[in-house]
Amino acid sequence: MAPVTGPKSGDALFASVDRVNAELFTLTYGAMVRQLMTDLEEVEEVNKQLDQMGYNIGTRLVDEFLAKSNVSRCVDFKETADVIAKLGFKMFLGVTATVTNWDAEGTSCSFVLEDNPLVDFVELPDTCQGLQYCNVLSGVIRGALEMVSMKTEVTWVRDMLRGDDAYEMRVKLIKQVPEEYPYKDDD
Amino acid sequence: MAPVTGPKSGDALFASVDRVNAELFTLTYGAMVRQLMTDLEEVEEVNKQLDQMGYNIGTRLVDEFLAKSNVSRCVDFKETADVIAKLGFKMFLGVTATVTNWDAEGTSCSFVLEDNPLVDFVELPDTCQGLQYCNVLSGVIRGALEMVSMKTEVTWVRDMLRGDDAYEMRVKLIKQVPEEYPYKDDD
Repeated sequence: MAPVTGPKSGDALFASVDRVNAELFTLTYGAMVRQLMTDLEEVEEVNKQLDQMGYNIGTRLVDEFLAKSNVSRCVDFKETADVIAKLGFKMFLGVTATVTNWDAEGTSCSFVLEDNPLVDFVELPDTCQGLQYCNVLSGVIRGALEMVSMKTEVTWVRDMLRGDDAYEMRVKLIKQVPEEYPYKDDD
Repeated sequence: MAPVTGPKSGDALFASVDRVNAELFTLTYGAMVRQLMTDLEEVEEVNKQLDQMGYNIGTRLVDEFLAKSNVSRCVDFKETADVIAKLGFKMFLGVTATVTNWDAEGTSCSFVLEDNPLVDFVELPDTCQGLQYCNVLSGVIRGALEMVSMKTEVTWVRDMLRGDDAYEMRVKLIKQVPEEYPYKDDD
């Protein structure tokens, strides 16, 4: 049913990109979080830094995503969320997310991850209560969406590292920034 | 010519592990280095931290390597170096290294990398003179070798980020720590 020139499948997309070992990535990320905990001391400060790093990474990754995925303009936030869940997560982490818990306006939804490569082998010591270990991911989503004119708030509402049964990231569309191109493409 | 139950090929090994997008890894590592530069200020301190993080990562990665590669005991440092270059680099970074510049005693050699996923899109600003950007890699080698009883010194002698024509990491075997098993397996 997919159009001939439509977006690639998530699997095809993931196969088309350069990859490195997931364990190396996981351990490197873990080393970074540990380093931030040592340097910054305040958990809240660490959470903020991880989010900001993710944001910076997201503003860069969106280019690779658009270049390789053949995804063109999404008609609305719903389609955007589906593309992120099925193609975005797959292309970068090799897993897919489920989009769920839409609000009535269609401006808030959740991404639920059952498999999260970022947290393999991770256990949070008691001293890390309050640490949002995966904040880099929510930052990436926020940064990438901002590059395609969607200002969002992204927060974690479930986190297996804190004993929840899944990873659930809540994405709320705050405003859709008008594009600054000299042409009008609404109609 | 490989024995039937011998080590896997580098390609087979790389195909057998979970992977994530290389650009995500590269950007995450870059964000970490930038963060360390901000927090620690002294370049020498950053170099030391990257090396230490790499060491910690290496002591963990060696387990996955031994579990998945089917590599058994190497007869000497030369064979160890070949295994790292052909299988270790491939399994974790998806590239291979060349082993070269052996000293007469067979205790020092270089790994030369022409392709280094860690540095894609990286340019060092003038303020980062002296930064050993890839110190995490030399730390990983040092940490992994220490887990198999080889104490080494690992240093970068060529670095494309500093204008050299390749990445060359010098590995010097300092001492081979006797194994602490209750059995003798020399003969």
